[in-house]
Amino acid sequence: MTAKSTREHIVEAADDLFYRQGFEHTSFSDIADAVQISRGNFYYYFKTKDEILDAVINERLANTRKMLQRWEVEGETPEDRIRSFIFILIANRADIKRYGCPVGTLCSELAKLNHASQGEANKLFTLFRTWLRRQFALLGREDADELAMHILARSQGVATLASAFRDERFIKQEVEQMCDWLKSYVGKTASELSQGTRARH
Amino acid sequence: MTAKSTREHIVEAADDLFYRQGFEHTSFSDIADAVQISRGNFYYYFKTKDEILDAVINERLANTRKMLQRWEVEGETPEDRIRSFIFILIANRADIKRYGCPVGTLCSELAKLNHASQGEANKLFTLFRTWLRRQFALLGREDADELAMHILARSQGVATLASAFRDERFIKQEVEQMCDWLKSYVGKTASELSQGTRARH
Repeated sequence: MTAKSTREHIVEAADDLFYRQGFEHTSFSDIADAVQISRGNFYYYFKTKDEILDAVINERLANTRKMLQRWEVEGETPEDRIRSFIFILIANRADIKRYGCPVGTLCSELAKLNHASQGEANKLFTLFRTWLRRQFALLGREDADELAMHILARSQGVATLASAFRDERFIKQEVEQMCDWLKSYVGKTASELSQGTRARH
Repeated sequence: MTAKSTREHIVEAADDLFYRQGFEHTSFSDIADAVQISRGNFYYYFKTKDEILDAVINERLANTRKMLQRWEVEGETPEDRIRSFIFILIANRADIKRYGCPVGTLCSELAKLNHASQGEANKLFTLFRTWLRRQFALLGREDADELAMHILARSQGVATLASAFRDERFIKQEVEQMCDWLKSYVGKTASELSQGTRARH
């Protein structure tokens, strides 16, 4: 392994462990064991678990940015792109059913720990919020931020309950409804805006 | 303090600490310190943190049952009662903004820890689900369980995002929309059922 790839390996293993068993519950040793390197080698890259957390959050932010850019390119219309967001629930349903949403559960845990990095972790939500807001704005919605927060909240709630009840069918059912909800907005936009009314969501 | 009240004090303090700083992060000593009793006295009541967790979950289950019974008595119509559920978000908004939902965050944490008590904790969700399902069934909805899960998920999502963004205004905004959503269901029920169609939600 080159110097770079060892560091990347550590961050990847930590990311996975933080997600599957929680940040607080994951020890330095757990991560070193997962990467199968010596303590000495490990300390060369990271001195504290908090340093690893920051690297994990940065990695997640970079990956999320890349994903949003990909959706931007792949989706022809804002509606297509918002649907890409909704469908992460389907793509990741096996993990979500067991461990919930990686963003939501990390932010919740760091909030309880009153951890110094909670602001950084919350930027993951902000990335999605800003991106979704732009899509709704492109659909001509003046309440784009409200709609972005609404759909973000719904996907969070689905992840939490799917995990509690270990229920994949529920994910599919709610994804279908979120798509219907989105469709109703796209359909209504023009006439509603001209009437100056706002749809219920 | 009598024997009974000391035990109650411990459970109450643990409940509060598990909520505010997480189960894993809360030590035996944290709880003993909060109750201000000696380790010896403490061990008389509880030998392990897991025992305390079970007592906390039982206490929460009992309190939730009482609350649901109260809503049942106080609410004249099923709609009123479902609204009582929605309004917990408002009543507890200060805590939710800081620590999220006590049920959702505990269940998420125990799922990651793969803790033996996760099934017990999830019963908190089941209590709400069963109660909400009954209310929607009373409204004549054949898809009562789906609606119960839907509104439960929405309230969870609101709690997660309100906590990440420390945003009370968002809670109020979503509560208003949940009430509108509920109203639209109550209004539509009779005619829709007679047509055999299902409303979008």
